[in-house]
Amino acid sequence: MGRREPQEVPKMSAAPSSELLEEDVEALKIITELTLEEDERISHSIGKSYRDLLGVRLGLPIEATDAVALPRNVDEVRRIVEFASARGIAIVPFGGGTSVLGGLRPLRGNHRAVLTVDLRRLNKVLEIDDTSMLARVEAGILGPELEEKLQSRGMTLGHYPQSFHFSVLGGWIATRSRGHLSGRYGGIEDMVQAVKVITPTGELATKGIPARSVGPELRELILGSEGSLGIIVEAVLRVRRKAEATDTRVVLFDSFSGALDVCRKMVQAGIKPALVRISDEEESAMIMALAGLEAEDTPSLILLGFEGSRLEVVSGMKGALNILAEAGGVDMGHEAASVWEEEYYRSPYQRDELLDRGYLVETLETAASWSRLWDLYAGVHRALQRVNEEQGVEGLSLCHLSHIYRDGGSLYFTMIVPQLLGREVEQWQKLKEAATEVIMHEGGTLSHHHGIGVDHLQWMREEHGEAALKALRAVKSALDPSGIMNPGKVLEEED
Amino acid sequence: MGRREPQEVPKMSAAPSSELLEEDVEALKIITELTLEEDERISHSIGKSYRDLLGVRLGLPIEATDAVALPRNVDEVRRIVEFASARGIAIVPFGGGTSVLGGLRPLRGNHRAVLTVDLRRLNKVLEIDDTSMLARVEAGILGPELEEKLQSRGMTLGHYPQSFHFSVLGGWIATRSRGHLSGRYGGIEDMVQAVKVITPTGELATKGIPARSVGPELRELILGSEGSLGIIVEAVLRVRRKAEATDTRVVLFDSFSGALDVCRKMVQAGIKPALVRISDEEESAMIMALAGLEAEDTPSLILLGFEGSRLEVVSGMKGALNILAEAGGVDMGHEAASVWEEEYYRSPYQRDELLDRGYLVETLETAASWSRLWDLYAGVHRALQRVNEEQGVEGLSLCHLSHIYRDGGSLYFTMIVPQLLGREVEQWQKLKEAATEVIMHEGGTLSHHHGIGVDHLQWMREEHGEAALKALRAVKSALDPSGIMNPGKVLEEED
Repeated sequence: MGRREPQEVPKMSAAPSSELLEEDVEALKIITELTLEEDERISHSIGKSYRDLLGVRLGLPIEATDAVALPRNVDEVRRIVEFASARGIAIVPFGGGTSVLGGLRPLRGNHRAVLTVDLRRLNKVLEIDDTSMLARVEAGILGPELEEKLQSRGMTLGHYPQSFHFSVLGGWIATRSRGHLSGRYGGIEDMVQAVKVITPTGELATKGIPARSVGPELRELILGSEGSLGIIVEAVLRVRRKAEATDTRVVLFDSFSGALDVCRKMVQAGIKPALVRISDEEESAMIMALAGLEAEDTPSLILLGFEGSRLEVVSGMKGALNILAEAGGVDMGHEAASVWEEEYYRSPYQRDELLDRGYLVETLETAASWSRLWDLYAGVHRALQRVNEEQGVEGLSLCHLSHIYRDGGSLYFTMIVPQLLGREVEQWQKLKEAATEVIMHEGGTLSHHHGIGVDHLQWMREEHGEAALKALRAVKSALDPSGIMNPGKVLEEED
Repeated sequence: MGRREPQEVPKMSAAPSSELLEEDVEALKIITELTLEEDERISHSIGKSYRDLLGVRLGLPIEATDAVALPRNVDEVRRIVEFASARGIAIVPFGGGTSVLGGLRPLRGNHRAVLTVDLRRLNKVLEIDDTSMLARVEAGILGPELEEKLQSRGMTLGHYPQSFHFSVLGGWIATRSRGHLSGRYGGIEDMVQAVKVITPTGELATKGIPARSVGPELRELILGSEGSLGIIVEAVLRVRRKAEATDTRVVLFDSFSGALDVCRKMVQAGIKPALVRISDEEESAMIMALAGLEAEDTPSLILLGFEGSRLEVVSGMKGALNILAEAGGVDMGHEAASVWEEEYYRSPYQRDELLDRGYLVETLETAASWSRLWDLYAGVHRALQRVNEEQGVEGLSLCHLSHIYRDGGSLYFTMIVPQLLGREVEQWQKLKEAATEVIMHEGGTLSHHHGIGVDHLQWMREEHGEAALKALRAVKSALDPSGIMNPGKVLEEED
């Protein structure tokens, strides 16, 4: 029952052989590029969820996809979907492979085989409309490819999720992704003017309009659909001129609760930084220790960033610092902030190191209205501690507010606990369930920006209610009548 | 064929007697307050569309609802919906009665009778959360009632559609309504944190969360549903502190195209007034004539308003005026603006006067990306002129941009034409169709903020495409399996 010692990562188990028939393979190879190589099949079947990473390390049996298709254009995608529909083969769309909730698992549903469709070759910027500040882009483009092309024209999308370097536009749309500069640029749902998706029923392309009143908004059904309705192939994005100026600082505050309170007042007073991150005392202590700093009291660190015109940045930061200073905040300047910015993209990969050393490292995120946020925060902490105590281990749980709104905020929890040897999956499940039950009970949402995948499926009824699930199932049946699109994700399979 | 002379409004035709059975009436009277009075049945069957108003004036036969229910609470609404579902009676939800697209027409579909449910008694502010700046409100509350209650607490919603004095919250949500201060406050979809709707399948209540990633967003299906999925009974609204300051001015510009261009640049540079209205040369000339002013050249009037903290207003207006002045705009100050503000709410009612004098007065609105806007504008003007010429009348068509976005704007057309005696409906239909075809062809949307009702039904396929309509129909079938909710609106009835 002790914790696992640091060890070599076990060799991956071999994947079972492909379930595709010879004739499927031949037909698919006429349509598109197809690979049945074991390495490709395995690497396309694993995302970045704790269970995925743990499975690899423990040498658990791999559920591998039966083949990986690499379409070169939308027409090939269309023909793949048509073929799979006709032959009863399930499809898992694959973007950057960064799902943290099992969204890429090659589940077959009640189909005889499953095909993963990797969209990396759909990576073109098709059109830029300088007048309307719009870019029409293929969905398989990686974050850095997209920003490079836009920035060479003096533009930016401004979408920087933590997975930025490895994730793609289609994945952002499919999961309602949100980057750390959401205060200025919004979430991906604010950036998408129109979207095109290939469904088994045909192409669904929403019209590109700044705003409209033409019945329920269909674009909002594709956003968050996680591959369960079709393959997102293209989007029209609202872009901006590259920011003229930026200013990012760290402000020290004496408590997490006080920091939350003053930042709420700041945002409600109309001052909205591009970036706000408020670390609780535990996370702040960890950050300060890693940076080799010591503090007398246990403080709460606020990371604050403005972007935009020089005037916007100067007056925004001035207004924010005034409010924070009045409430006792201490401006620590820019340097501490630049350390953080490097850390932001690196931290997910430090997880691998800790996993190799026998630690469970998992993140949880939610959002709630301000009036519910504190009880939710305290409740999740207590629940995680309780589970750790029951299991006889001492764990660390850190938290920060990562996105701020006038009506509430999102909380991001990181837990680091020694793994229980032989009970690794069960241990994770207990922590996940205990925390999620508090989240649901305290008025939080099942996910602020990670999505559903398979890990959150069991709480979908509680999140939405019966009538809403009926509506979601109906949309799924209308667009994907035989249920081939990413079965067992977002919605549980019906009997 | 000549134009109609000013005349007395003809007396309303009597409505046919109610199709409700004695036993329906008795059962409904146990559930709620019910009236079968002819006046009430007629006044609840007419909205504010040109056809509605014309029908009354021409004494055309009235399609009247069979009864009007006036539920006092959500439970009564629920029981009404259950009763109507069980007995196969159609329901038309009724808020303020201001639909301009026939959304209130008492169509029966394939049901034996139709019941209009007037929500005016669901007008309570149920809860105010000062911390999260949220208000939970019943859906039948009128604009002025809601603002009065919020403003007595120092708050505002900031939603001021032109129908403000007579329309209700539920109607705003059902039609994705947008008020003239949308630049600061957004559309109603930005203000609604959560919504509760009674559908024939049961209650659908979305969770109140600042943002979430839990599959397709169900709230966005209720927004714009126009009563076709259920009766909206409650919403949680994002409110704000009342603005500390406002500043509204008129700026004179030498051409509409130039004014559009400079305002686009202003918004794309990050300066976003709460209110922007840009009148084309024809509308500007009309406004100036009504105000007793003369201009040497034909100018374009820009109405510009800022709201917020003193700092926001001063720096916003300064930035805007700098950009406009550099491009040749002339600041005319506040007085002209205050005249406009009075006019804003009065102008829909001046339509009645013109109708009484034998004029066709109709408005059309759309939105498009900036790069499409000019061709759309010019095309609609040409189409309206062509139809008038074909019909041998001289008409006026005015236009303004009424909502501004980084990626585009909405255009609002007003046409005033002498009515063709004996061919009034046909004349209107020709103008509506000619303009809408240009709108659809030039990349505009069928409606920016008026909705679908019955008048826009025939273009829904072109707006959304086949796959999207399938999804919409599927949602309708899931939530309203026997099709009793506002039949023949939003979606055409299937055979």
